[in-house]
Amino acid sequence: MKIIQGGVTIPKGFKANGTAAGIKKNTKDMALIYSELPCVAAGVFTTNQVKAAPVKWDYHVVNDAEFAQAVVINSGVANACTGIVGTQCCESMAEITGRELSIPKESVLVASTGVIGKQLPMDLIEAGIKQLVPGLKNDLAAGTLAAEAIMTTDTKSKEAAVSIEIGGRTVTIAGMCKGSGMIHPNMATMLCFLTTDAAISKEMLDKVLKDNVKDTFNMISVDGDTSTNDSVLVLANGKAENPQISQTGADYDTFYAAFDYVMTCLSKMIAGDGEGATCLLEVKVEGAENKEQAVLLSKSIVTSSLTKTAIFGHDANWGRVLCAMGYAGVSFDPDLVDIYFESKAGKLKIVENGMAADYSESEATDILSQEEVTIIADLKSGEAKATAWGCDLTYDYVKINADYRS
Amino acid sequence: MKIIQGGVTIPKGFKANGTAAGIKKNTKDMALIYSELPCVAAGVFTTNQVKAAPVKWDYHVVNDAEFAQAVVINSGVANACTGIVGTQCCESMAEITGRELSIPKESVLVASTGVIGKQLPMDLIEAGIKQLVPGLKNDLAAGTLAAEAIMTTDTKSKEAAVSIEIGGRTVTIAGMCKGSGMIHPNMATMLCFLTTDAAISKEMLDKVLKDNVKDTFNMISVDGDTSTNDSVLVLANGKAENPQISQTGADYDTFYAAFDYVMTCLSKMIAGDGEGATCLLEVKVEGAENKEQAVLLSKSIVTSSLTKTAIFGHDANWGRVLCAMGYAGVSFDPDLVDIYFESKAGKLKIVENGMAADYSESEATDILSQEEVTIIADLKSGEAKATAWGCDLTYDYVKINADYRS
Repeated sequence: MKIIQGGVTIPKGFKANGTAAGIKKNTKDMALIYSELPCVAAGVFTTNQVKAAPVKWDYHVVNDAEFAQAVVINSGVANACTGIVGTQCCESMAEITGRELSIPKESVLVASTGVIGKQLPMDLIEAGIKQLVPGLKNDLAAGTLAAEAIMTTDTKSKEAAVSIEIGGRTVTIAGMCKGSGMIHPNMATMLCFLTTDAAISKEMLDKVLKDNVKDTFNMISVDGDTSTNDSVLVLANGKAENPQISQTGADYDTFYAAFDYVMTCLSKMIAGDGEGATCLLEVKVEGAENKEQAVLLSKSIVTSSLTKTAIFGHDANWGRVLCAMGYAGVSFDPDLVDIYFESKAGKLKIVENGMAADYSESEATDILSQEEVTIIADLKSGEAKATAWGCDLTYDYVKINADYRS
Repeated sequence: MKIIQGGVTIPKGFKANGTAAGIKKNTKDMALIYSELPCVAAGVFTTNQVKAAPVKWDYHVVNDAEFAQAVVINSGVANACTGIVGTQCCESMAEITGRELSIPKESVLVASTGVIGKQLPMDLIEAGIKQLVPGLKNDLAAGTLAAEAIMTTDTKSKEAAVSIEIGGRTVTIAGMCKGSGMIHPNMATMLCFLTTDAAISKEMLDKVLKDNVKDTFNMISVDGDTSTNDSVLVLANGKAENPQISQTGADYDTFYAAFDYVMTCLSKMIAGDGEGATCLLEVKVEGAENKEQAVLLSKSIVTSSLTKTAIFGHDANWGRVLCAMGYAGVSFDPDLVDIYFESKAGKLKIVENGMAADYSESEATDILSQEEVTIIADLKSGEAKATAWGCDLTYDYVKINADYRS
């Protein structure tokens, strides 16, 4: 597997563009991804009962249409809680994009992110699409333009790409995402777009995405708020001309591993760029009886406000970690738990068998003062494990969210 | 029902005291409640899998002993995650207190609150108990001393008392509590002690407490972290000499209403004094199909970090409220929901049928700038309702928790 700089334009046959359409003040706010060939597509969407209009549209495209060929995205307005007018605006976005690209509107996926409850400014959207289409390019810079245009409170654009060999052909998988949290109802929120030139059946692409998202995007949290707009979409256009992946087996596994790498990279970028974050927090639960136990415990730790503030304070306050495990809603034996803190500054056992180990507070503080910190909880009860990602909870999280709309 | 100033010493036959035993620096840290007569007792405890030693001890006393007669409490150290030594320390606290009061150790309830993972300083605890016992008094000031001694990051002591008439006798119910959140693993955490001179059977007292706590303490949240030490304990000594309440009926209902008043007061005091809070946030879900739906939706709103930061920013960001309802894990029709914001500055409809109503942002800001703010979500789907209490999420929450141990 080869790691490549760049994003959605790296796989063969994909073009992209980003522009400032005037939805937000003085910054890029619209992006377009386009494939020269029709693609099989797969998507996973928010579980929130309140679903934004584009989530409903994309669900329909992904499940009912044979192919998709473009994704049009705006930031600034989420098009959530906007009623019938919002549904019509979303469909218009697909229609205008389809017309400009000469493809059916049912081949156009739509994504929106921004404030909930406002209607899209359709005149600006239409003008934006008309700017985007003629400027579509397949170079690295065009992918980055698109990645920048979908940002809201993100401080960095987020791209990843890798290539692998399948059946003697080079297959590339790439993606971009935004979200300063998977999980921000107002920013509404986490969007991720993957492109690949792999030849893969729709059924297998769907399986890869749905299996993988459980270990990647579903394992990140910034603040526990699941948005109305979360979407991960993947388009595969077959331009790599590898033998089509149409069943599980060696080729599927190779593709899965590469897909997992891209999804994991992008997930960690979102967690580490969580609103106000100073630190990417990784939580590994090991020695669990089963996967579900490991998943629930790791997510409970990574979402605990008190654990997150302790990480911000570089404080080895392990009682909060054990406490967060205790209320995860899953049974385990607290008296067996060992807890370690790890970063590039070292690894330290903080808790042994549910009680304080003999550790140096200053060494622990050094470890917790790095930009990436890992908490490892070993249940010593089995072989299952899970990893979750989040970030610390800081003054800036409060600042960003206390006056987001103003 | 008559509302009375004061706390646990208001009901007949109860004494209390508080002192600085040296567990914390320069502040009171031990309290004692004592009844002249043996009491029937009831208790509810944390559901956290990691339970502090005193939680296990009290569970045994409340369930296996016929009577209880005293509660000894320390703040500063939670006696959680302390192994066999912690269990022995807890039992010693009961034993020393029992010896000094000339009652069996099995009649002594124990509560601890403070840092997790440290052992109790038993020399200081023993000296503290020996100071507390001779100073026990039944006046209002003694109750307040005790309420002050159990505080951790609380900014105010928390007491409530009422009296009612049952069978021609005046029955008094009072309580004190601490917790700057029900829900703070490190402070470990929410403790509540109620006294009453009612004559009531143990079975009925247990029923009152377990029925009521669902609508009061189980409906508050500061940060979603359920502690290792949460306990609500109630002692009834019968000194009011009312006809014993030994079944449901009119007397039970009178007692229940008064008990509910005290529990609701104390619950709201904790929510409003949540760490760093500038505002008590009340969330009412009305028009629900059933109680469970109303409970889950109201708790989801009151625990949403993004709703809480919006309240801190006095920002009528209703999308976050509807979004938090959407991920509550319960089905409802978003397109029917009306949302109101209310405070002493007025009441305003913000959302009608799931979309923005025509409201004035400046009027909404005025309403949200008060010390007590209510969000009302009307599902227009039935008759059930529920109320939850919490607070805003502020810079000071982060400050308090980033360096709690230092």
